[in-house]
Amino acid sequence: MKITEKDVLVPLDVPRDARDDYIQNYLKITQNSGNLMLFAGDQKIEHLNDDFCGKGIPADDNDPEHLFKIAAGSRIGVFATQLGLIARYGMDYPKLPYLVKMNSKTHLVKTEQDDPYSGQLYDMEQIAEFKENSGLDILGIGYTIYLGSEYEADMLTEAAQLIYEAHQYGLITVLWIYPRGKAVADEKDSHLIAGATGVGACLNSDFVKVNSPKSKDGTDAAVLLQEAVKAAGRTKVVCAGGSSAASDAFIKELYKQIHTGGVCGNATGRNIHQKSLDEAIRMCNAVYAITVEGAGIDEALKILEGK
Amino acid sequence: MKITEKDVLVPLDVPRDARDDYIQNYLKITQNSGNLMLFAGDQKIEHLNDDFCGKGIPADDNDPEHLFKIAAGSRIGVFATQLGLIARYGMDYPKLPYLVKMNSKTHLVKTEQDDPYSGQLYDMEQIAEFKENSGLDILGIGYTIYLGSEYEADMLTEAAQLIYEAHQYGLITVLWIYPRGKAVADEKDSHLIAGATGVGACLNSDFVKVNSPKSKDGTDAAVLLQEAVKAAGRTKVVCAGGSSAASDAFIKELYKQIHTGGVCGNATGRNIHQKSLDEAIRMCNAVYAITVEGAGIDEALKILEGK
Amino acid sequence: MKITEKDVLVPLDVPRDARDDYIQNYLKITQNSGNLMLFAGDQKIEHLNDDFCGKGIPADDNDPEHLFKIAAGSRIGVFATQLGLIARYGMDYPKLPYLVKMNSKTHLVKTEQDDPYSGQLYDMEQIAEFKENSGLDILGIGYTIYLGSEYEADMLTEAAQLIYEAHQYGLITVLWIYPRGKAVADEKDSHLIAGATGVGACLNSDFVKVNSPKSKDGTDAAVLLQEAVKAAGRTKVVCAGGSSAASDAFIKELYKQIHTGGVCGNATGRNIHQKSLDEAIRMCNAVYAITVEGAGIDEALKILEGK
Amino acid sequence: MKITEKDVLVPLDVPRDARDDYIQNYLKITQNSGNLMLFAGDQKIEHLNDDFCGKGIPADDNDPEHLFKIAAGSRIGVFATQLGLIARYGMDYPKLPYLVKMNSKTHLVKTEQDDPYSGQLYDMEQIAEFKENSGLDILGIGYTIYLGSEYEADMLTEAAQLIYEAHQYGLITVLWIYPRGKAVADEKDSHLIAGATGVGACLNSDFVKVNSPKSKDGTDAAVLLQEAVKAAGRTKVVCAGGSSAASDAFIKELYKQIHTGGVCGNATGRNIHQKSLDEAIRMCNAVYAITVEGAGIDEALKILEGK
Amino acid sequence: MKITEKDVLVPLDVPRDARDDYIQNYLKITQNSGNLMLFAGDQKIEHLNDDFCGKGIPADDNDPEHLFKIAAGSRIGVFATQLGLIARYGMDYPKLPYLVKMNSKTHLVKTEQDDPYSGQLYDMEQIAEFKENSGLDILGIGYTIYLGSEYEADMLTEAAQLIYEAHQYGLITVLWIYPRGKAVADEKDSHLIAGATGVGACLNSDFVKVNSPKSKDGTDAAVLLQEAVKAAGRTKVVCAGGSSAASDAFIKELYKQIHTGGVCGNATGRNIHQKSLDEAIRMCNAVYAITVEGAGIDEALKILEGK
Repeated sequence: MKITEKDVLVPLDVPRDARDDYIQNYLKITQNSGNLMLFAGDQKIEHLNDDFCGKGIPADDNDPEHLFKIAAGSRIGVFATQLGLIARYGMDYPKLPYLVKMNSKTHLVKTEQDDPYSGQLYDMEQIAEFKENSGLDILGIGYTIYLGSEYEADMLTEAAQLIYEAHQYGLITVLWIYPRGKAVADEKDSHLIAGATGVGACLNSDFVKVNSPKSKDGTDAAVLLQEAVKAAGRTKVVCAGGSSAASDAFIKELYKQIHTGGVCGNATGRNIHQKSLDEAIRMCNAVYAITVEGAGIDEALKILEGK
Repeated sequence: MKITEKDVLVPLDVPRDARDDYIQNYLKITQNSGNLMLFAGDQKIEHLNDDFCGKGIPADDNDPEHLFKIAAGSRIGVFATQLGLIARYGMDYPKLPYLVKMNSKTHLVKTEQDDPYSGQLYDMEQIAEFKENSGLDILGIGYTIYLGSEYEADMLTEAAQLIYEAHQYGLITVLWIYPRGKAVADEKDSHLIAGATGVGACLNSDFVKVNSPKSKDGTDAAVLLQEAVKAAGRTKVVCAGGSSAASDAFIKELYKQIHTGGVCGNATGRNIHQKSLDEAIRMCNAVYAITVEGAGIDEALKILEGK
Repeated sequence: MKITEKDVLVPLDVPRDARDDYIQNYLKITQNSGNLMLFAGDQKIEHLNDDFCGKGIPADDNDPEHLFKIAAGSRIGVFATQLGLIARYGMDYPKLPYLVKMNSKTHLVKTEQDDPYSGQLYDMEQIAEFKENSGLDILGIGYTIYLGSEYEADMLTEAAQLIYEAHQYGLITVLWIYPRGKAVADEKDSHLIAGATGVGACLNSDFVKVNSPKSKDGTDAAVLLQEAVKAAGRTKVVCAGGSSAASDAFIKELYKQIHTGGVCGNATGRNIHQKSLDEAIRMCNAVYAITVEGAGIDEALKILEGK
Repeated sequence: MKITEKDVLVPLDVPRDARDDYIQNYLKITQNSGNLMLFAGDQKIEHLNDDFCGKGIPADDNDPEHLFKIAAGSRIGVFATQLGLIARYGMDYPKLPYLVKMNSKTHLVKTEQDDPYSGQLYDMEQIAEFKENSGLDILGIGYTIYLGSEYEADMLTEAAQLIYEAHQYGLITVLWIYPRGKAVADEKDSHLIAGATGVGACLNSDFVKVNSPKSKDGTDAAVLLQEAVKAAGRTKVVCAGGSSAASDAFIKELYKQIHTGGVCGNATGRNIHQKSLDEAIRMCNAVYAITVEGAGIDEALKILEGK
Repeated sequence: MKITEKDVLVPLDVPRDARDDYIQNYLKITQNSGNLMLFAGDQKIEHLNDDFCGKGIPADDNDPEHLFKIAAGSRIGVFATQLGLIARYGMDYPKLPYLVKMNSKTHLVKTEQDDPYSGQLYDMEQIAEFKENSGLDILGIGYTIYLGSEYEADMLTEAAQLIYEAHQYGLITVLWIYPRGKAVADEKDSHLIAGATGVGACLNSDFVKVNSPKSKDGTDAAVLLQEAVKAAGRTKVVCAGGSSAASDAFIKELYKQIHTGGVCGNATGRNIHQKSLDEAIRMCNAVYAITVEGAGIDEALKILEGK
């Protein structure tokens, strides 16, 4: 599970003089494995404070620095969050690999009231400038598309533009694609999710993050993922971690997503940070072991239990 | 059925120093025939995964590379798809003639919910830059207009701009024009389709792709096409392949569209790629034979059957 | 009925170094008469194929070149159509005086569904560039405003901008102004039409094209035009030809519009091109005789009859 | 009632090298009095032809030149109208002081159908260029805001931008601010009008034009104006002339608006131009005498009567 | 309660050559205390004249200069208002520390009619230019976001852009964040307000101003603030003063907000300016003493009473 420079497929919109940067960023973000372990920390806008303070969530999680402490204390591929948090904690966490989440919305307006739109907050030139000014190791950018929303066209265009521009700088791109809107009956239908990963491919994203499908007939969800992985072609698929689950079940499911479903990684947030620092670090390392290091379930569970 | 440089009508918005490029692109895309065989592969956004995975569709079709393998293995005029796929497979298929589809939407939001709008994903400078960076043989661009949609004005303007700019680079343009929206009672009315091709002419497109009209009184659909072909003037009309049909019937219909209807070609997708590679290649070659080489039905059917 | 350079009122937004161009364009478009005979050929978008193919319309009219043949074979002030048609036929009709229609919409969405908006297709720099590249005699531009539409503000701004920019290049401007929208009870009310011509003046257009008012009390429509002509001040008013009428009645009405109503010309489309080439040319010449040459009705009718 | 250069408060967004222009423009527009007599001639778009042709309106008023003749024949502070009219009559009225009305809408769409929005027609660079090209004495610009409209945000931004940019050129600004929209129950409420003048101050306008409040309890309307004048701070308030009233009553009311209400002038249109030239000039001069010269009511009435 | 240059956390989007300016602006705005006493004077647009003229409001408050007199006569951290007022009074109050409020809306359109949107009035280049031209001590900018509004996306983007650009100039930023819109059931819910401060952090604002939460179960409002303060991380939280309250109660509450709730200051408007100049100055100084100087309640009340 080791890749080298020659294994990296460089998309053809990356200009010649940015190819080396692209390759190095790709190797770093996958930790030379080709697989992606993305620690997702963009929920402070997406879910406001619901994910950080409440029943069953340790008090530490309410401090945004909790996210940075976890990222710094464990092994991850990349830490994804909004530019604001990076700009305010990055000086104390200068070695972390960062991915800037380029759009965000709150969950206040529900789909019944209005279809979802999440707007671009920065342009790529600002991100490149920020990378230069901050000296931080910014490896890529992320963007969310709500497929089937009445505002789909706006998001498709913003995504296409951001990916094209990110590639000009040799940066790696991750699309979060969720079917959502009044037109979407079943957000977790496996065939629809395969449509979403195909859209990610057509938009030229390096990675596309989707929800794990929900089975309607008892088929294993990981098996259902296979359609999506194949439909994505050379764009790599990662599964969203979703809402909090029992850690060991999560680890087992992740193993199946990768080894049965064929995804190349995961993007996990709440299942990591809604824990005490120590537990969160162990969880991170367990996820990393499976995703990047090719560990088996038992090995990962040992890491999880701190053994 | 052989044209040469002097047969190419260069529209007057093409600047002097781009005339040669325009002529060469025109000859290539029509394979020196003046007719266009366009292999359409933009459905991964337009129809999500419905066209690539499902009953009656071979498993291979779910892999985007299937499209490239078909294009590489057969004779075509041009392969039309989104920039993302070209950017990720082009390095392995460097000799293919490409056309970049500039806008796309999913089919999730139906017309009853909202009239269709398909938004521009890139600007022409990016396409020119991409052509330069990739070194690929990009011959032109495509754009879809939904005539009669409440968003018609946006699409007319984007189309007019894209065509004007494409011509500045000597690139060839194809408009997909479909009447659609709450205001459109019958999308396949032949008189309305003739309106659509006329709009294509007024917008200065080199080619305009329309659906074949549906006869209401028993008149042959190919005969009905004549109004549209004449109304388009010097803009050439190609027929959409539409949903999957029996291959031999498809070939016979195509022959009539060209020889009776007077269209100059076709844009076929599902009728090609929803087949195994071998079958798809034979289908492609049969379509090519009729469209570009002036073959008769029998000759084409032999190709289809691999004889 | 002969004007010379010193008779041309140059609006003050025309910069000094474009004054001569403006004056020459004005003299050409009015054929040194100060009056405007505009042959309108923008209906292929506005009315789709309804004006070009159907009962009572000669088959020739379905070919866009019919318009160019008429313009080339007869005497006209200027031929107004979309850039696309000019770009594809202009090489064979290099001597014609052209006016580029800058916006267009189809008639598919009716006012009951949505108020009308017709969007700008090109910017003025592109038109200037096109004039340069094509070498054609482009004398001016046209733009349609639907006064009273909920999108009125967009069109007022686009019109003001286009006129200002056209004048920077010394080009002549014609506004088509039609009151239309859910707020407009009577599109042909003479007082409302006088409002429309006044708007044309405030927007600095050289010419404003309006529909002929419809009398509610038996007053002659031509008399009713007088309010509009006076309200327009130094902006010249031309009457739309409207839907097809008997040729001799049309000629008589035109004479009254000019001599009683005080308009300076007409913009005629269907009443010209929905005829065989020969008839159309005679109609054009008759209209021209009255508008530009000061002919009387009898003289014009003789031309019409080919005597 | 005489001010000099040192009395002119130059707002701090005026750059150093435009201060002298600002001061000279301010002195000219107030005729060295600090007070503003604005002759408003923008109604040809705002009210279409209703203000210029109809019962009780002299026939001359239908000719736009009537406005210029009045302005040239009488004493005024500045003549406000759209760029189009200035561009077509300015060559014959080169000495007039002009103010360009930057936005306008018709009255066709009523508030019940849609809240009002009046869109910007030109940008400030075009106005500066027009001033240069025309050689005319353009002293400032005007813009209308409908406070409480659902489109309020668009107009606040356009106004803020125009004022900022106008000041870069040393030009004077006048905001027309009218509360209007479905949310506005009483457009002439004095407290609401004081809110409007305060908005004018916050937007940095030199002058703000409001309607005279309508008393609900018998308080003199002029007394009610005092709140608005004080709320405007260093932004000067002028009263709209409103619809046509008896001339002597108008003069008396104006006197009270200035001497009791504390406003610094007026913006009068219909009460001037809906008269024969001779009467209109006398009316203008009477208004000017009160506003700029500090005349009393008797003196002004004598001017009105031509004595 | 004294901070020095080395205590200032400079966010990483501040470019190297603007770091010193940022630090100096931060020290000035917090008066070397790290805490912020913001005197809010932007209500002339937000609330029209309701806050400045009415029952219980002293007559002086209707004159905008009242705000400047208070600011000049007392101790404050920064005076926040619209550019217009600064531009017209700044020459007489050249030593005040200013913060430009970048967006504003009136309260005329209620949420039931349309969700709130407050639009950006200037861009950052204009503010930098204004600072240069005016020579005033402009320390930062402010912007209001209505979280949960259907226009949330527009405001999130404008805020992110303004903060990024302000930091390029070394300016300090304050976000006013209020949950508001049809989707927001309880604007003062403490958990929701903690979501708001978290959004402020993700957007990289230096300060975020929120309303004090309203307790639903008797918990002290100041205690409820703790969640919001922690959720904001390194972004500092200040409490809005809200509508007028008894001065001594206000002072006591403020003390608790800081010492129990953990906020770093306050943004007070009506509780200051709806008083006579003398009272207002004493109130300002009392608020300043608690916020910036670490005074206790008794000490502050003495200042309030002028002892």
